[in-house]
Amino acid sequence: MNELNRRQFGAAVAIATTLGVAGEGVAAETKPAGSEQRFGLMHKQRLPEVAMLLYPGLTLLDLLGPQTVFATSCKVHLVWKNTDLIESDSGVVLKPTATFADCPKDLDALFVGGGPGQAAIMTDPEVIAFMADRGSRAKFVTSVCSGSLVLGAAGLLRGYESTSHWACLDALRMFGAKPVAKRVVIDRNRLSGGGVTAGIDFGLTLLAKMLGDNVAKMTQLAMEYDPQPPFDCGSPAKAGPEVTQQVLSWMGPFAQQMLKTCAQAALAMPK
Amino acid sequence: MNELNRRQFGAAVAIATTLGVAGEGVAAETKPAGSEQRFGLMHKQRLPEVAMLLYPGLTLLDLLGPQTVFATSCKVHLVWKNTDLIESDSGVVLKPTATFADCPKDLDALFVGGGPGQAAIMTDPEVIAFMADRGSRAKFVTSVCSGSLVLGAAGLLRGYESTSHWACLDALRMFGAKPVAKRVVIDRNRLSGGGVTAGIDFGLTLLAKMLGDNVAKMTQLAMEYDPQPPFDCGSPAKAGPEVTQQVLSWMGPFAQQMLKTCAQAALAMPK
Repeated sequence: MNELNRRQFGAAVAIATTLGVAGEGVAAETKPAGSEQRFGLMHKQRLPEVAMLLYPGLTLLDLLGPQTVFATSCKVHLVWKNTDLIESDSGVVLKPTATFADCPKDLDALFVGGGPGQAAIMTDPEVIAFMADRGSRAKFVTSVCSGSLVLGAAGLLRGYESTSHWACLDALRMFGAKPVAKRVVIDRNRLSGGGVTAGIDFGLTLLAKMLGDNVAKMTQLAMEYDPQPPFDCGSPAKAGPEVTQQVLSWMGPFAQQMLKTCAQAALAMPK
Repeated sequence: MNELNRRQFGAAVAIATTLGVAGEGVAAETKPAGSEQRFGLMHKQRLPEVAMLLYPGLTLLDLLGPQTVFATSCKVHLVWKNTDLIESDSGVVLKPTATFADCPKDLDALFVGGGPGQAAIMTDPEVIAFMADRGSRAKFVTSVCSGSLVLGAAGLLRGYESTSHWACLDALRMFGAKPVAKRVVIDRNRLSGGGVTAGIDFGLTLLAKMLGDNVAKMTQLAMEYDPQPPFDCGSPAKAGPEVTQQVLSWMGPFAQQMLKTCAQAALAMPK
């Protein structure tokens, strides 16, 4: 046993003794810990009911950022037409927790993120009817990334300021919304976040509105949200024209499809 | 039709015309777009093989942050003992894409995130054997949040600097690692990120090492990673003693269990 191993072994034994672990060999004999696989709730207020739309081809981080923010202090429903497995835009397969029919009628927040799959749902009458119905009564009507265009297609952004992923921000105009190039945009009870990672900033902002600053601050610290991006290129202005053009070229087919879908959806938008 | 509606309708028709959409009523008649539900690859280099451990009770954002970073430029495997559905610590149910047996032997990167469920896997010989085996040959051995303690339990951090969630950083000592309180820590081929949201900073850093700065910058811009946290409280020092103590009280049962598990796992750590 060398010096490093001796010290490390000493530390483990000291902690094992303090905590009443029985000593060497105990790992194999003891029932593994971890039966408690969820954190407890962070507050004693009423749990806000949040419905987040889960659909094939969504960009999962759009949803998972705010879902993680809400997870320890809200009742979160991942809703879709049914509870069949769904594949995200990067191949992650996951399961909705509620159907459109199960989803509470009166929500604290209705949420939708973006992704290539939104082209299909923006022209799907069943999805649009669900979003329009819940959105008409939810306390907050919310989105991250190009998910705002889904709200637009459901007729929920007429006359409202909203944001979106930088690459499709202007498309909001087709739905009568006013595009605003900010990380998080609040207009009355409409809250929207910019592209993908903006969902964390958006989520904490909404959480503070629903449960107060203290719960939001606890959540931010628990998630160690003290970002230090390795590059300063998170917006087109910061990234410069070369990298921006590369990303636009890469996104080309998606952006073309999105514009076309928006035009179709705007013409079919509910009154 | 009021002024706003007229302008919005005009914009939609203009775009519909440019793109060759057939006009009013087309939404119902046209096959919905969105058959292409994934983005294309961002580069023409060899696809790095990345295996990310998916286990019951993990904190999904630990994994989904970097998984989203890698998704458009690497081959990502979400690995577990089998491909049965798995429930994360916040109730999201998802499906592994590869088993331990299927997982490539020689990886560009092996990754593990943290979560309440790690207590069970850190004392599970099958998981530890898998991690030790792949970790012994992977080009990069990596973690986010308390996932570093899983690497430690597999004997992969002896003599290495590493980081972890702020609340359990010191436990790294039990595995012979040197805890470093930084957002991303690099020591030879070991890369680790701090708590939860640090996975995005970590992921972009690792991506730059695997595929160069340009692909990482494109990814950062595509994810619009230009963070603007609503509060300045993402570390204990910034949050101050009151909020930090509230989070520690809330995390109490988890932290106690984690320390106990680490002590057990350290005593059973592979040579």
